[in-house]
Amino acid sequence: MCQLLGLNSNLPTDICFSWTGFKARGGVTDNHADGWGAAFFQGRAVRVLHDAQPSCSSALADMLGAHPIAATHAIVHIRRASRGDIRLENTHPFQRELWGRHWVFAHNGTLPHFSPPLDGTFQPVGTTDSELTFCWLMQSLRQHFGAWPPAPLCLLDWLRQFVLDHAHHGELNFLLSNGDCLFAHSSTQLSYLIRQAPFASAHLIDTDVTLDFSDHDIDPSTRCAIIATTPLTDNEPWVTMPAGSLWCFDQGAVLASAKTVPGQAAQTSGPGG
Amino acid sequence: MCQLLGLNSNLPTDICFSWTGFKARGGVTDNHADGWGAAFFQGRAVRVLHDAQPSCSSALADMLGAHPIAATHAIVHIRRASRGDIRLENTHPFQRELWGRHWVFAHNGTLPHFSPPLDGTFQPVGTTDSELTFCWLMQSLRQHFGAWPPAPLCLLDWLRQFVLDHAHHGELNFLLSNGDCLFAHSSTQLSYLIRQAPFASAHLIDTDVTLDFSDHDIDPSTRCAIIATTPLTDNEPWVTMPAGSLWCFDQGAVLASAKTVPGQAAQTSGPGG
Repeated sequence: MCQLLGLNSNLPTDICFSWTGFKARGGVTDNHADGWGAAFFQGRAVRVLHDAQPSCSSALADMLGAHPIAATHAIVHIRRASRGDIRLENTHPFQRELWGRHWVFAHNGTLPHFSPPLDGTFQPVGTTDSELTFCWLMQSLRQHFGAWPPAPLCLLDWLRQFVLDHAHHGELNFLLSNGDCLFAHSSTQLSYLIRQAPFASAHLIDTDVTLDFSDHDIDPSTRCAIIATTPLTDNEPWVTMPAGSLWCFDQGAVLASAKTVPGQAAQTSGPGG
Repeated sequence: MCQLLGLNSNLPTDICFSWTGFKARGGVTDNHADGWGAAFFQGRAVRVLHDAQPSCSSALADMLGAHPIAATHAIVHIRRASRGDIRLENTHPFQRELWGRHWVFAHNGTLPHFSPPLDGTFQPVGTTDSELTFCWLMQSLRQHFGAWPPAPLCLLDWLRQFVLDHAHHGELNFLLSNGDCLFAHSSTQLSYLIRQAPFASAHLIDTDVTLDFSDHDIDPSTRCAIIATTPLTDNEPWVTMPAGSLWCFDQGAVLASAKTVPGQAAQTSGPGG
């Protein structure tokens, strides 16, 4: 299995603090040591880093801490290989272009016998079930919506049905973004936190580091959502995302969420729902 | 206009020495200061770095020198913007997936009025004529060969016709690779060098740095081709690639080349041709 970390912010924000705790799970506080990767959206562009080394001891991971990348959306993944060797091409997140936008996907879970009928428009480069699922998702998305990309809530609705159609294949915790908004699906385990003014002190769980955000020159209008497999800090109001829930984050807040439990109605709701 | 740097090697090799000279052209010895990018193939995986800062003063560019990435194929580009603003999404090289492999493209030249009929399978994220040309190339490649990728010399032949069909649109110096081999087209200006045993001393043109490769613990079987818009060193046997010539590099040597001058026969030839 693996772990996920996501950022969605109304203003470009770096993930250095979260990364300090999260990367420790790649070999120190947990055993997700089979490579890591990170994608950062800056406008329409995306920067993607991959390393087959454990995040706790990767020189590239240290550089990421030393040279912060400010982004409105970030998707980070640390891997414990289940299907697919420990190789660079098998590290998440995966990236494809659709409708003239970069799409980025990272997955936690296993879909052991999933073998979708790919038509060649998107094909895996590596050998993970995760990249295969992403290619199938991209192909299905393009087939369904044709030449024009859907609005975020249409996409939420479509993703909900996609998840329901594939839930029987296995666990599908994932983060997905095209740089406009960020989708997060909790198949079994995912939490989020909204960090905004008044900024306060935060203490990491995985390493004894405290940061008082009020000491930093942060634009007071900054609002960011941090999404992680399990909470990264022990003194902030993390929200558990129930198993079987799909979320759309926009401008650092929950735009909408929907249940993905088979047999239940969508119950799409806004942030207060 | 822009400048190109390529590497094709039989063993993973870093480009630190070449990069030291080449990056100076991004603001010190030349004016290609509108961003830079680099792609490194490691097996089937590709690592791509982009920066909208000048390569001569980019922190990421310095990191690339401090933390060498060994690769069998590399494509590097420094930009002087002609069409498309100075933005991260407009920096080369561009990347797409086709037939389950990453394809990377960088371009030097301008195609002022090029407006190909894209069908949506590959669409530009940015606003450069270069990414547009790459998307058209990918679309055409897929349409022509269908579900199965061509062998390198079939691809050389197809690329030759592609270049001939589009030569009237403008200058099309480019580097293209899918990690199997590296194609280089000299529309107006490009040179290459084969560096192999017995390794000797090399002196950069753009900065007064000399490196004696014989002092380094290099596998004696290493053979690498360096391709650049203009030679990077002043004491090595660079070969000028004539205007209107297309080259396929494999395992650090010329596998074949073909003329791309309208009205002339292909005259595809091997390395001795």
